[in-house]
Amino acid sequence: MNADLIKDVRRNNPLIHHLTNQVVMNFTANGLLAFGGAPVMAKAEKEAAEMASAADGVLINIGTLTPEELPAMIRAGISANRKGIPVVLDPVGVAATDFRKDAVKQLTDEIQFTAIKGNAGELAHLVSTPWEARGVDSVGDGDANEVVQSVAETFQTSAIITGKTDFIYTDGNLYTNDSGHPLLGKITGAGCLLGSIITACLSSGDAAKDSLLTAVSFYGHAAEFAAQQHNVTGPGSFSPMFIDALSLDPAQLQERKI
Amino acid sequence: MNADLIKDVRRNNPLIHHLTNQVVMNFTANGLLAFGGAPVMAKAEKEAAEMASAADGVLINIGTLTPEELPAMIRAGISANRKGIPVVLDPVGVAATDFRKDAVKQLTDEIQFTAIKGNAGELAHLVSTPWEARGVDSVGDGDANEVVQSVAETFQTSAIITGKTDFIYTDGNLYTNDSGHPLLGKITGAGCLLGSIITACLSSGDAAKDSLLTAVSFYGHAAEFAAQQHNVTGPGSFSPMFIDALSLDPAQLQERKI
Amino acid sequence: MNADLIKDVRRNNPLIHHLTNQVVMNFTANGLLAFGGAPVMAKAEKEAAEMASAADGVLINIGTLTPEELPAMIRAGISANRKGIPVVLDPVGVAATDFRKDAVKQLTDEIQFTAIKGNAGELAHLVSTPWEARGVDSVGDGDANEVVQSVAETFQTSAIITGKTDFIYTDGNLYTNDSGHPLLGKITGAGCLLGSIITACLSSGDAAKDSLLTAVSFYGHAAEFAAQQHNVTGPGSFSPMFIDALSLDPAQLQERKI
Repeated sequence: MNADLIKDVRRNNPLIHHLTNQVVMNFTANGLLAFGGAPVMAKAEKEAAEMASAADGVLINIGTLTPEELPAMIRAGISANRKGIPVVLDPVGVAATDFRKDAVKQLTDEIQFTAIKGNAGELAHLVSTPWEARGVDSVGDGDANEVVQSVAETFQTSAIITGKTDFIYTDGNLYTNDSGHPLLGKITGAGCLLGSIITACLSSGDAAKDSLLTAVSFYGHAAEFAAQQHNVTGPGSFSPMFIDALSLDPAQLQERKI
Repeated sequence: MNADLIKDVRRNNPLIHHLTNQVVMNFTANGLLAFGGAPVMAKAEKEAAEMASAADGVLINIGTLTPEELPAMIRAGISANRKGIPVVLDPVGVAATDFRKDAVKQLTDEIQFTAIKGNAGELAHLVSTPWEARGVDSVGDGDANEVVQSVAETFQTSAIITGKTDFIYTDGNLYTNDSGHPLLGKITGAGCLLGSIITACLSSGDAAKDSLLTAVSFYGHAAEFAAQQHNVTGPGSFSPMFIDALSLDPAQLQERKI
Repeated sequence: MNADLIKDVRRNNPLIHHLTNQVVMNFTANGLLAFGGAPVMAKAEKEAAEMASAADGVLINIGTLTPEELPAMIRAGISANRKGIPVVLDPVGVAATDFRKDAVKQLTDEIQFTAIKGNAGELAHLVSTPWEARGVDSVGDGDANEVVQSVAETFQTSAIITGKTDFIYTDGNLYTNDSGHPLLGKITGAGCLLGSIITACLSSGDAAKDSLLTAVSFYGHAAEFAAQQHNVTGPGSFSPMFIDALSLDPAQLQERKI
């Protein structure tokens, strides 16, 4: 983890334009605010390009996609590509329905993503590797390291598979991260908010490797920190403490006490 | 309350497909996750049937319904009927507008609901019994036991009226439940999340009576438990503790201390 | 602050119809419930007028506006004008895109707003005063007192600019409010929820000056109260305590301890 990169992000307070799912909008906005970014969320096609062109990064998450929202996503992504700002894809539940498969095909055809992140089942689907999924969750087991490399090479992007161990493939190299906590799997939107934090870190302009490893490592440490606060007794009380932890400095997270 | 039924639900980790309102999506997802289910939320017509066919239960809640979402609800419900999984209706605010009345008429015409749940005013409206409502809240007083039986018989379903006392009518019998806490009435989505928990319990395959009574009884006890934690000082701090309580075992709820 | 006005609002439990953004719906509903109002949120054009005609006030917030939602907002606002209930506009991020500019133009052309509230950049835009904005946030500095008066006179309404100091212009007079806490700027939807509280206070029928000053003053004091509770360690833990504080009496807020 590169603590200076987090300081840079917080100094820049990057404006991240989200086209994300309705379940996690509030949690994502609060998490990014705590981390040090500035969220904007808009989904009308008419303003997608203009909003993206004013932003420092764009996150596209298809969790509750409708046909009306897809053109807005495409316009925002193209606008981000033109401006040269990072644009990140979270293909939530892509393997669940044909509608999502087709949508992700269109998105990856039209937009050059800076990073694609998801669980193992979602990324496996993108490269036609069999994997057991269920709804929007990945439940199978397989060679995540091969999948993440394959996604990165197929879409000429950085790729991140999140899970107990996170797999990151960027610039021809594979990295792993083991920070994190099981409570992240008991709250909705933990993966979605990470997509937002990743986008914010990528906007720092540092090397993708530094940005991605810092984002996933910090995120996991914040979860570990939050989980061991004395007033956390389950996923409900974990959630606000996790938001608090996202606002701390890496050094504070290691002290393990607010 | 049948503690084994809750264990069964948690072991099965049922995937519940929600077509629900935007106000409560996050709270519902977190509550169902804590309880032991797996939420998926999607509202595009194009994927509604496919998503429902992969699920263990479907919840339809019209709280922020739009005309675009209604066909998705109908498709998901029909798909659930075909697969033989439970499908539950929460007719939020049905008495408030003609749009909602017409929508519920279509839904009940096209879908055989396993259960219909709501407050007294909502269920009274379904069987044309006068009742005082206001916005999406029921404020009147009347013969809830007659209304719940009438709804059950009219729609050939189980029916649940929630309130200070819950009324449950299923398989020709009326039951009541008195667990609960006034703070449930001070947070948004308490009834909506209960719909999700009911759907999860119905997916257990146990008798409807057991599933419904277990769901409402456990839910109320979890609220009582949460309300008396020392750090709960109002509806805001109640909410995360309630989510925590939903993850506990029935025996733990009786000990009254996490 | 007029403590009796807050008592009146709580006794009336006003039904406030929200056409608001998806990011803040849950937080707004819970905040208004805690304060003593009754939220309803609906956005279908087909029911907008009918829902508004049953309400005690209407709040229109364009934070995640889509073209489909605009006609519903207009119908709800016209319905509120006909019934003579307050209707409040929160032009979130209006300066960010042409789509929002056009939408606000239509809204202010068709609806006579009782109050227009926003940050300095948003209100400056409404009267074509240059101001630095970024996404949906106002970051510039300028003569807020001139802007607030200009908005009030241009749209024949009360106007409120929120910020470190709040500026309120109503009935030809300028007022300021200094209660508040920096943590309000670290959670999403703090301004949006204030719009809801303002609408509730305006529904009391008291003088606009009393309603507006009471709303902003109480809101800020509640934030100050919440921020100093011992278990608040950041924006995540602040949020539920702030909801709790909104349910307190003004006298309790001054004692500074729940």
